[in-house]
Amino acid sequence: MARFITLLTDFGPAQIYIGIMKGVIGSLNAQATIVDLSHAVEPQNVLEGAFLLHTAYEFFAPDTVHVAIVDPAVGSERRAVALKTPFGIFVGPDNGVLSYVVDRVAEAAPGGVELAIQERTLRPEAEAVVLTQPRFWRHPVSHTFHGRDIFSPVAAHLSLGVPLNLFGEPTRILRAYVLPKPRSIPSGVEGHILHIDRFGNLISNLAPEDLPEGQPVVTVSGVEVRGFVRYYAEADDLMALIGASGYLEVAVRNGSAEARLGTRRGDTVQVRAG
Amino acid sequence: MARFITLLTDFGPAQIYIGIMKGVIGSLNAQATIVDLSHAVEPQNVLEGAFLLHTAYEFFAPDTVHVAIVDPAVGSERRAVALKTPFGIFVGPDNGVLSYVVDRVAEAAPGGVELAIQERTLRPEAEAVVLTQPRFWRHPVSHTFHGRDIFSPVAAHLSLGVPLNLFGEPTRILRAYVLPKPRSIPSGVEGHILHIDRFGNLISNLAPEDLPEGQPVVTVSGVEVRGFVRYYAEADDLMALIGASGYLEVAVRNGSAEARLGTRRGDTVQVRAG
Amino acid sequence: MARFITLLTDFGPAQIYIGIMKGVIGSLNAQATIVDLSHAVEPQNVLEGAFLLHTAYEFFAPDTVHVAIVDPAVGSERRAVALKTPFGIFVGPDNGVLSYVVDRVAEAAPGGVELAIQERTLRPEAEAVVLTQPRFWRHPVSHTFHGRDIFSPVAAHLSLGVPLNLFGEPTRILRAYVLPKPRSIPSGVEGHILHIDRFGNLISNLAPEDLPEGQPVVTVSGVEVRGFVRYYAEADDLMALIGASGYLEVAVRNGSAEARLGTRRGDTVQVRAG
Repeated sequence: MARFITLLTDFGPAQIYIGIMKGVIGSLNAQATIVDLSHAVEPQNVLEGAFLLHTAYEFFAPDTVHVAIVDPAVGSERRAVALKTPFGIFVGPDNGVLSYVVDRVAEAAPGGVELAIQERTLRPEAEAVVLTQPRFWRHPVSHTFHGRDIFSPVAAHLSLGVPLNLFGEPTRILRAYVLPKPRSIPSGVEGHILHIDRFGNLISNLAPEDLPEGQPVVTVSGVEVRGFVRYYAEADDLMALIGASGYLEVAVRNGSAEARLGTRRGDTVQVRAG
Repeated sequence: MARFITLLTDFGPAQIYIGIMKGVIGSLNAQATIVDLSHAVEPQNVLEGAFLLHTAYEFFAPDTVHVAIVDPAVGSERRAVALKTPFGIFVGPDNGVLSYVVDRVAEAAPGGVELAIQERTLRPEAEAVVLTQPRFWRHPVSHTFHGRDIFSPVAAHLSLGVPLNLFGEPTRILRAYVLPKPRSIPSGVEGHILHIDRFGNLISNLAPEDLPEGQPVVTVSGVEVRGFVRYYAEADDLMALIGASGYLEVAVRNGSAEARLGTRRGDTVQVRAG
Repeated sequence: MARFITLLTDFGPAQIYIGIMKGVIGSLNAQATIVDLSHAVEPQNVLEGAFLLHTAYEFFAPDTVHVAIVDPAVGSERRAVALKTPFGIFVGPDNGVLSYVVDRVAEAAPGGVELAIQERTLRPEAEAVVLTQPRFWRHPVSHTFHGRDIFSPVAAHLSLGVPLNLFGEPTRILRAYVLPKPRSIPSGVEGHILHIDRFGNLISNLAPEDLPEGQPVVTVSGVEVRGFVRYYAEADDLMALIGASGYLEVAVRNGSAEARLGTRRGDTVQVRAG
């Protein structure tokens, strides 16, 4: 059985840790096709990793194994988990890096403080295990590189068709961030910048259905952008548009909105009726 | 049928957009071998993308599908095209990113202002279509990410052997830059720096046959380099040599010519008889 | 025969040179699985390349072909070699980039000045050839890109099962750095920082068995770190721990030790009984 395995990490492009993980996976399943989803997550930015995974997994077949590692607490008591859903199998630390996936297969959240970590209860369509079964790991297990010693070999065995329940204790509870949700403000809505890409485009969590009608005014880092364009070339300079991921994005024609505005991940963005 | 598909973009190393494209391709042709040609093209630098593609495609089998995306006008009226040649199949926007390829299979150019975009007529050995047939696309089609919604699925179907003419309207005209050609100057020749690599090596468009005989003087960013070496270790410091791509290159031994000289893409370089 | 081929270079992430090498390999062996080990070696830092290869090759099957190119003297008289060992086949310049591999299969070193290049005699378990047989190369051979014209085609033919002795003259002597070895200092040991990763973690050549007992004091760049933690999350700020590669590492919780301390590759690190 040859399956796709994707890797999403904050290890940085072309770093040795990624090559090592591919060696571990390839030694167990030489037929697996390994795809680098992204390794450009900001170091230790769990939420950015979760958001990027969210924008990408649906483009893969449902039997794909997605490994997501943004794991500042590697080696500590935080759990390592695998989650099987109708739209993909996910492997990673139980630290919020699977937040968007968990949010999709869990019972409604009780509400809570934004960006707090919350325990969520899975609906019956999803199955999860805590990775406690050492026979699927590499030994000795490093305290600092579970990507190599736990997540990679588990992903390889999953891609070979080993049933989920053999990997450890079943669990119905997984941790997810209380996702930054669009919030109503006078005559508009407020969201957050969750990702900044290589072009310096600022990608928010505001979907088209969240936005006021017409040609609203977007405010980010104290600067106002009037109206939306459909694509980058439609603007002369600073612009707002619905980007590739399906969310509101602020960009600069042939330039970087990040550099121009000094915006950082986590900053707010407001959209008000124009 | 398993074929090679290459990706050349300005998305930046290890960015999520590349991973997403691989998901789209892999979902349609799980047997395709996808190779990252480069993702380090300077953002929106169409000519650098064209030049890099030009230095790379000949190292792949002629049935390889090359996807080239440096596409600042994505979503606008610019056409999306596929071009079949005896030396490869090329997919991308019709914005000049295929300039060197088009130049090789088109009738002689009428001349024109350097770096203007020109319409070129294909010779019979090449076939091209405008990608107008939505049944080979992903839907809904984003205005900002045709790499995912048009170019990737088209490349996947091409790699599966779908005939070119099914993808859209045939065309005999494609757009290409009037390439920066070496120009005669008193006792020498002038070219341009088209690419700067990770080492800070400055790669020009001057081929050995363009250069004055003997050991000429190379001038770039106001600095003179006397004579050519054959390889990097033959020089002590600043040097000129014919680099891997077959073009004149200015480099610094164990250092960066870009950092030393402050040279930028597009800057001129002169070579005069010594 | 489908085999794994890994690539380790200082070409930089997603650069065109890497894509070109994959084209050359794929044209000769379309079944090979090519893995990027790392391309983030500091430019021309042969020792960092050697160290990274050392931390990675053991995670691949023993019939893997590892291509290691950090080659500032490409084109000069330096030899190009292939080395077959019980734990992998290695291809690269004979300039020290295989130092750790050579050290493992060679007779005991005579001693010598640290970081000098030394000739080492292979033990019977290893076989090596100088790559002198042009029929396995691409022609014409560039003076500046043996990665494309010599190392890639040789690796492809090796992966196809061509016997080692056909590639050139046998040799029992390969060059390796006198590796920076831990040195005793009053009440402790001194080592070197050999690699800095994307997180700014400082990775040394000190293994657990080199270190004083108990909770010693680590000094790097004039700063003292008291005691060891087991994993990153166990510390509040600056920390010392045994990292993923099995060596002493200095790190900053959710930050960069490189940025904080200004440490560079090659700097010393001292560990003294606390």
